[in-house]
Amino acid sequence: MILTIEHGKVRELQLNHPPANALGPQLISELRNAIEHAPQDGVRALVLSGFPGRFSGGLDVPLLLTLDRTAMAAVWKDFYALLRALACSPIPVAAAITGHAPAGGTVLALFCDRRFVAQGDWKIGLNEVRVGIPLPPVILGALQRTVGMRQAERLAVTGTLISPAEAAQVGLVDEIVPAESVIQAAVRWCDELLDFPPQAVALTRRKARADLAILFDSDVNAELDEVIAGWWADETQTVLRRLVDELAKKRAKA
Amino acid sequence: MILTIEHGKVRELQLNHPPANALGPQLISELRNAIEHAPQDGVRALVLSGFPGRFSGGLDVPLLLTLDRTAMAAVWKDFYALLRALACSPIPVAAAITGHAPAGGTVLALFCDRRFVAQGDWKIGLNEVRVGIPLPPVILGALQRTVGMRQAERLAVTGTLISPAEAAQVGLVDEIVPAESVIQAAVRWCDELLDFPPQAVALTRRKARADLAILFDSDVNAELDEVIAGWWADETQTVLRRLVDELAKKRAKA
Amino acid sequence: MILTIEHGKVRELQLNHPPANALGPQLISELRNAIEHAPQDGVRALVLSGFPGRFSGGLDVPLLLTLDRTAMAAVWKDFYALLRALACSPIPVAAAITGHAPAGGTVLALFCDRRFVAQGDWKIGLNEVRVGIPLPPVILGALQRTVGMRQAERLAVTGTLISPAEAAQVGLVDEIVPAESVIQAAVRWCDELLDFPPQAVALTRRKARADLAILFDSDVNAELDEVIAGWWADETQTVLRRLVDELAKKRAKA
Repeated sequence: MILTIEHGKVRELQLNHPPANALGPQLISELRNAIEHAPQDGVRALVLSGFPGRFSGGLDVPLLLTLDRTAMAAVWKDFYALLRALACSPIPVAAAITGHAPAGGTVLALFCDRRFVAQGDWKIGLNEVRVGIPLPPVILGALQRTVGMRQAERLAVTGTLISPAEAAQVGLVDEIVPAESVIQAAVRWCDELLDFPPQAVALTRRKARADLAILFDSDVNAELDEVIAGWWADETQTVLRRLVDELAKKRAKA
Repeated sequence: MILTIEHGKVRELQLNHPPANALGPQLISELRNAIEHAPQDGVRALVLSGFPGRFSGGLDVPLLLTLDRTAMAAVWKDFYALLRALACSPIPVAAAITGHAPAGGTVLALFCDRRFVAQGDWKIGLNEVRVGIPLPPVILGALQRTVGMRQAERLAVTGTLISPAEAAQVGLVDEIVPAESVIQAAVRWCDELLDFPPQAVALTRRKARADLAILFDSDVNAELDEVIAGWWADETQTVLRRLVDELAKKRAKA
Repeated sequence: MILTIEHGKVRELQLNHPPANALGPQLISELRNAIEHAPQDGVRALVLSGFPGRFSGGLDVPLLLTLDRTAMAAVWKDFYALLRALACSPIPVAAAITGHAPAGGTVLALFCDRRFVAQGDWKIGLNEVRVGIPLPPVILGALQRTVGMRQAERLAVTGTLISPAEAAQVGLVDEIVPAESVIQAAVRWCDELLDFPPQAVALTRRKARADLAILFDSDVNAELDEVIAGWWADETQTVLRRLVDELAKKRAKA
């Protein structure tokens, strides 16, 4: 589900789970492992990418709705562990947003060091509330530090999906680049960073991202329990099942 | 002093206290009550508006200067309770800034969920220091979360009044709309929000505004004592009385 | 090393230590004293300026590399005391950035109330990591409040030097003015502020800058020990000595 491509000291982790790079238990687990183990292989920086037109469609709701409570709790725990792996990664991670990145797609990018997005008519944003999922607090926290409290409130509460241009304007992404060079731009950003004195960069990076790492401190387990319970709320289940039914009907027609 | 206009599930509270919608004890108390009681009437969202050309001119200084210490302390307490009612409202509140909104006018808008402003040559901002009133901390806190620390420092310390265009640029307001449709824009924003899964929105909204609500936590009473004492400082009284004298002279001439 | 120029109630402290206004022990100490003593002379506001083309080139690395551990520890302590004097100054301080302001030059400006920069092709930013110095936490904190967490992470981690135009865009400076009037603009800003009710301004200013002052609270000594130890790290010393050698070779050629 993940292609590993080496660019010198920079390793690209390319999500490769068509059609939508939807995040199910296996992809979450593989991605977490790939991120956590990269430094041990001597990799100095990571690029997280997708395929043209699709970065990630977020959680694989149709699949997740087939899971029981125990399995679903494990998914949420592993997803949090994945976000923590990004937030606390000892090596920099650049996101190369190659296409659509609603919900979980944007979430992954938010915990990276820098966000490059391909030019194109993609949907970016955190539309969790629109599918009945209250935005988990660690994600809200990452959003707040990235775009500020005012824009975070707007984007989180209304669940608006926006274009790359608007995303760049509010700071949800950092740079828009031609689609064919978005991965290259992310790799080059990493390479430039690796040219600087490594300890000074590592120490400064750790402090500049300390507010992000701290989101995963002691209280995160209580938060996670709440998020897991929320998944089983009547409203959430009803909205998610309606969504999946509509998707199935669309596919049947097509 | 307040017109109540129902737009389906959205209730508009239209400040209607000419000539300036100045905030005296009665309007503050009525507005606080209207906000606090709306959810009990089944109202799902609020729009706070004024009349064309005037949102609110802020505190009714000429009237407040006639009050004794006990009465004035009650006004400040009720004004804080009004801001708290906005900050902690269980239903969303959109501001339709229909005209001038200096000082208290901007303050009311800051505690709302979203700020729509009519196109026009209005004065917006927190000019409290220029009339001798140190900006109360809860208002500074709301300003900081809305425009960031740097712009908050500038706007609070210099008391600059700015145009809708500059207000939009620094994030003090969210959207500029033609004057004739500013209320409609605020109602529509509420209506759209009400279309989304209500519990997911309510939970996300509460967390995204938690930093605003927390301003009114335990320490607020000590802060309020300081604000009330500040009203009676020599400098404040002198500047406010000079201001009222100048207003009276202007009116006598006109 | 500092020219003192009185503009009515506003005192200009003009760094005058050619060729680069580099911050060595003496300039740091003199500047700190000048800032701390100004209020006692009845000065109501300060402007911190340089000479045309040069605000400050930051720490005087060639000189500092000749110091032993005791002397170097004293320099860092005094530099922190200088930043504290700016952060906690009871009177406003406007920076008139008259030219290049890499590293320490930008640091000084960050702790001022407002930053005016001369039009011109200057380098502004915090390039500490590129010369092997992890960005000290108080400086990171000042950067975060000024440009927000996202831009602070980028500027701190990559050590990018930017133009006045980009600095204005991200909020690292407040206003770009023609070079010949940058000092005048800073003085005028102070003068306008001094026209407002002084106690209201002083109280509001103290609260609006409280988050900056708090950076120098109790924990700052432990932080300072870390910063001082960091100066003697192998990487830092190696990079700084290479830098000084390159500068010496350049000068020998010229």
